[in-house]
Amino acid sequence: MEDFLKKTKKSSRIAATLESKLKKTLLNEMADALSEKKDLIKKANRIDLKNGEENNLSKALMDRLLLNDERIEAMAKSLKEIAALKEPVGRVLEGWVVDSGLRIEKVSIPIGVIAIIYESRPNVTADAAALCLKSGNVAILKGGKEAEHSNKAIASILQEILLKHNLPKEIISLLPDSSREAVGKLIKMDKYVDLIIPRGGEGLIKYVSQNATVPVVKHDKGLCHTYIDKDADFEKAIAIAINAKVQRPGVCNAMETLLVHEEIASDILPMLLYEFEQYDTYLKGCEKTRKIINVDEALEEDFETEYLDNILSIKVVDSLKEAIDHISKYGSGHSEAIITENYTTAERFLNEVDAAAVYVNASTRFTDGGEFGFGAEVGISTNKLHARGPMGINDLTTYKYKIYGKGQIR
Amino acid sequence: MEDFLKKTKKSSRIAATLESKLKKTLLNEMADALSEKKDLIKKANRIDLKNGEENNLSKALMDRLLLNDERIEAMAKSLKEIAALKEPVGRVLEGWVVDSGLRIEKVSIPIGVIAIIYESRPNVTADAAALCLKSGNVAILKGGKEAEHSNKAIASILQEILLKHNLPKEIISLLPDSSREAVGKLIKMDKYVDLIIPRGGEGLIKYVSQNATVPVVKHDKGLCHTYIDKDADFEKAIAIAINAKVQRPGVCNAMETLLVHEEIASDILPMLLYEFEQYDTYLKGCEKTRKIINVDEALEEDFETEYLDNILSIKVVDSLKEAIDHISKYGSGHSEAIITENYTTAERFLNEVDAAAVYVNASTRFTDGGEFGFGAEVGISTNKLHARGPMGINDLTTYKYKIYGKGQIR
Repeated sequence: MEDFLKKTKKSSRIAATLESKLKKTLLNEMADALSEKKDLIKKANRIDLKNGEENNLSKALMDRLLLNDERIEAMAKSLKEIAALKEPVGRVLEGWVVDSGLRIEKVSIPIGVIAIIYESRPNVTADAAALCLKSGNVAILKGGKEAEHSNKAIASILQEILLKHNLPKEIISLLPDSSREAVGKLIKMDKYVDLIIPRGGEGLIKYVSQNATVPVVKHDKGLCHTYIDKDADFEKAIAIAINAKVQRPGVCNAMETLLVHEEIASDILPMLLYEFEQYDTYLKGCEKTRKIINVDEALEEDFETEYLDNILSIKVVDSLKEAIDHISKYGSGHSEAIITENYTTAERFLNEVDAAAVYVNASTRFTDGGEFGFGAEVGISTNKLHARGPMGINDLTTYKYKIYGKGQIR
Repeated sequence: MEDFLKKTKKSSRIAATLESKLKKTLLNEMADALSEKKDLIKKANRIDLKNGEENNLSKALMDRLLLNDERIEAMAKSLKEIAALKEPVGRVLEGWVVDSGLRIEKVSIPIGVIAIIYESRPNVTADAAALCLKSGNVAILKGGKEAEHSNKAIASILQEILLKHNLPKEIISLLPDSSREAVGKLIKMDKYVDLIIPRGGEGLIKYVSQNATVPVVKHDKGLCHTYIDKDADFEKAIAIAINAKVQRPGVCNAMETLLVHEEIASDILPMLLYEFEQYDTYLKGCEKTRKIINVDEALEEDFETEYLDNILSIKVVDSLKEAIDHISKYGSGHSEAIITENYTTAERFLNEVDAAAVYVNASTRFTDGGEFGFGAEVGISTNKLHARGPMGINDLTTYKYKIYGKGQIR
């Protein structure tokens, strides 16, 4: 393991100084190679599928594992899109001149070696490798055991392009040993690895966060709220509540709990009940809610649950303060929304709610790299430091200070 | 411990929304209170000094512990300076409108609860508390056992001002239990603590980095190099080398190793020897160096050592590449400088050397919050993520996205 990491660390100096134009060429050639070598990928994928069947993987997991022509073309297209993104390295973030006459520039640079730990979907292999390459980083990829052959096939196609250009293939590496113990070792290798991004189940993320000495950017759960204020426009409120819950209930930026101000509860709750019935949403409510509409009881644990399903907890609150307190207690710091026409209420909500993304009069579903205009997305960080919310390629950079002198001493 | 942390966490919501004007008032009143209650502080300090004597603290440590009128006034003055800094919370870092018509603002916000672990100097108590307060954060302060009474006296004077304004005193907290076990517990409390800043010896920093689940920003060692290129202006080179080594050898941004291009070595090394002799600097050199000037031998371990003393290792290199390779192998990523008049060489050095601060034709001694124009300094980060290099109060903030909609759904 240490030998492998030494090589990746060494190749990170080369990755960091690749010219923008060359990085584009590499990524476009990688995209073409994936298209051309579809059959090779599908052949490897069939082995994974066969093993998956033998191991009785669920239908959902089998579907995530499957690579067909269409999915391979999508993977290639994504690489071309990443190639076309604006160069993330070398942006001058700030610049100024100080009393001593030194000129200081704060400039974006690659982070170095980034390890990405993920599960099932093999397309992440290509995407993560491309995002790291575009931002001048070395990628260490650790996919799921169940996608082993597919990931290897994809990685070796990408590595061939690196070798063709006389670059070390370690710029895109698969972790050679994919056992649990290897991961346990990897996350403590702060001498060689600069950042770990775990993407997957709660267990994986918790394990990595609790045990890593390498910095971790988590892509964790989202327990998102929408608060319908007493000064809400009902039409907006209903459309947004429906959208936030039902458009795609299985994702982290979907709403899990709806908060409603008691002054308008008896007017709007029946309308919401009617609308949610059209989508077969299973509603649960607090005591006050259940005095107005006939729904099952929402218990304390419901307010703590990320359903990732077409289920919604409803709570009637007596004030903005109670809404913010509830969010502060149960929210996961991901995305929170208020629906109101009242300026002062909106301002208070925006300022006092602590989350990566706080919305006025919009659906929490917009917390997404694409919707934010970042292009391809590395993930949605639930960290409070380094990167918060949707992560684009700029979030795979850090900075250094370049200081231009003319002989200054202190 | 958990009860205490719950209270600090709760008070962080109040600290985060303090108005800029009130924060200034608080800090100025705290400064005045320190001046007025000098005798109280000196009385507490005398207990620490007495205990220090009994425990045979070194003369240097006793001096760091001592608080006299002058030092207390300096502490008060520092608080007034922090009060006058530009408001770090609420800066709009970026802002744009996306395809859906949403208006997105990336806005700086406080980090939350920051624990600062430090040793001896009691003035850090006031400084760290003030920097956290100014940036809307709650400070948990853990000073050294040897300064216990002084720290308590200072903290209680600051807390009185909070209470006078009906604010929770937990906004500035001393860790109630200052045992080693308590620190071990604290650094795993990621539920309540958002950031830990250890300032002190290598042992402390290593222990915290290896064991914390809370994010850590380290204020670690500096093994800084100056490289005199073959195209250097000798006058600048000599002035900068002397300054970087002797002006204050005991600090992290002082030079530890001097690299000299072999083409000019036989010309400049005798001049450097003459100059360094004026300052009684103890010089050690590589084999090539010792063929030119008569100095002791620099061993492998010398190039790995942060002397923090008036000692300098010298190495003759055959190229820019060898200089960069040496820095990459031995440097601590703190501050690195090149002396050259050659544009292309300077550019390569600036781009290829990975350090928080890279200099052309200036002394590494400038890596400092004050010299960077940040005002008071939280420390100098040797992290690669979140904050790098000199940390001002802006580095005690993170960000959130505020998103302004008019009913948008996906």
